[in-house]
Amino acid sequence: MKRTIALFTLLLVPFAQAADPRPPSQIIAKAPAEHWRTVDTENMLYLDLERGRVVIELADAMAPAHAANIRALAREQFYDGLNVYRVIEGFVAQGGDQSGAKPVKHGKRTIPAEFSRKNVPAEHFTPLPGPDGYAPQSGFIDGFPAARDPATGESWLVHCNGAFAMAREQDIDSGGTEFYAVIGPAQRYLDRNTTVFGRVLEGIEVLQQLERGDKAGGILENPQNNRILRMRVAADVPQKERQQIEVLSTDSPSFAELIAARRNRPEDWFVARPNYVDVCSVGVPSRQKSSQ
Amino acid sequence: MKRTIALFTLLLVPFAQAADPRPPSQIIAKAPAEHWRTVDTENMLYLDLERGRVVIELADAMAPAHAANIRALAREQFYDGLNVYRVIEGFVAQGGDQSGAKPVKHGKRTIPAEFSRKNVPAEHFTPLPGPDGYAPQSGFIDGFPAARDPATGESWLVHCNGAFAMAREQDIDSGGTEFYAVIGPAQRYLDRNTTVFGRVLEGIEVLQQLERGDKAGGILENPQNNRILRMRVAADVPQKERQQIEVLSTDSPSFAELIAARRNRPEDWFVARPNYVDVCSVGVPSRQKSSQ
Repeated sequence: MKRTIALFTLLLVPFAQAADPRPPSQIIAKAPAEHWRTVDTENMLYLDLERGRVVIELADAMAPAHAANIRALAREQFYDGLNVYRVIEGFVAQGGDQSGAKPVKHGKRTIPAEFSRKNVPAEHFTPLPGPDGYAPQSGFIDGFPAARDPATGESWLVHCNGAFAMAREQDIDSGGTEFYAVIGPAQRYLDRNTTVFGRVLEGIEVLQQLERGDKAGGILENPQNNRILRMRVAADVPQKERQQIEVLSTDSPSFAELIAARRNRPEDWFVARPNYVDVCSVGVPSRQKSSQ
Repeated sequence: MKRTIALFTLLLVPFAQAADPRPPSQIIAKAPAEHWRTVDTENMLYLDLERGRVVIELADAMAPAHAANIRALAREQFYDGLNVYRVIEGFVAQGGDQSGAKPVKHGKRTIPAEFSRKNVPAEHFTPLPGPDGYAPQSGFIDGFPAARDPATGESWLVHCNGAFAMAREQDIDSGGTEFYAVIGPAQRYLDRNTTVFGRVLEGIEVLQQLERGDKAGGILENPQNNRILRMRVAADVPQKERQQIEVLSTDSPSFAELIAARRNRPEDWFVARPNYVDVCSVGVPSRQKSSQ
């Protein structure tokens, strides 16, 4: 008889959980320490503008040449004193060397495209259920919104709000120094047309508050109003000026619970629940590391 | 013989068009006058903030009670001197009477929800091909991004960037005066949980440049920095201060061509084309009427 009760109790547990799901805010607040990953300071950029700091995580595993190049450029202080010279409402903010004349020392002016990667191990990809019109499958790779094509084995990072990518000319290998960030709605049609090599962890509002361009293509008449004070690799900044940031691991149980709660919001306020969430609407949580 | 040539020529026309598709910018620039519709000034609101003007088109056909109520509130100058008191980065800007104490004269404090409508005629819905994870079908109704469920006959407006909607408390019929606009990425999980009753035609950047809230829920400590100078119905403004705005008709051949071009960008620069566009990424073009 005891055994039967125990079995019944065990069977009940999943139902009890399903009947009492937690809202996203609670899942994030209560996620245990081991579900968070500390961002490697070698993969973290500080882009300091007049209006504040933008913190970027580089996707070193998905675009190693682009990550290495922007680290080299930041270390030679290439971006310091340049501008975010192209800002288009609801689209992107683009910065770097508009003139193309500033000498590059250790970094490279152009690097081959890294639009996608083959053979990202399946366990590095956390798939989302449900359709994605832009790709056979979408989900997350190590904290970055991503997509994959199981037929070809290709994986790529996608253009959600905050995507950090490299502008290019007609030639697919012509980018290298002119970065952009998606400051508005997702721009998924750009997926695999440029190299996405990071994402904005903090300070997207700093980019959004920049002056918009007035000329064709969003180019600013006076780009010095959007001046880049400096860009630094976080590892190079003295410890006490460094922000330590944690990202909720996209392969953790807390993140799986978050996806479920985003698909069907459990709060009583909701009367319609779509049983769906798209890759750009999940939001990968990040926070300042509390122990610092 | 002539007849055969003529037939052959006719057959070739669609192929010639398909082989030489136009990019979105050209489709919009070249759309003939009869593909544009002038926004009814009774359905147009001017929300004037310190930083500039936000122009909103009301979806009178989809949410007639909400459209009528905000017209009444604008006409009694209810919003003048109130604030956009809640601004959340990447989410919404909400304005109105935070105190709930300002007397309402001709408008109503609360009105029944208009989350969706039954029996919108099929010819008023321009469907998008391809999947939409949030709804059985998505597309456009008279210029507004929308969704529908053919099984129930329900149609509703969706939360893309620029959606203009009514905040509410727990009770679904508790909204009436506190409007919000989506200032960042789409928030589709809110669809059918609030009444979307318009969209921002111009000036979304004015809302995006507002000060963000610092307290819980994005509430501003000093909302008077985001003060509403006035809200007016365009029809009530002297002709010479009025902006006449046209919207590309979403049931026009130009809009159909625009959808096709957004699904597969024809410009040579693109090397990957998803053969897809989601309802929030099409962008319904609007412009100042040139003859004014």
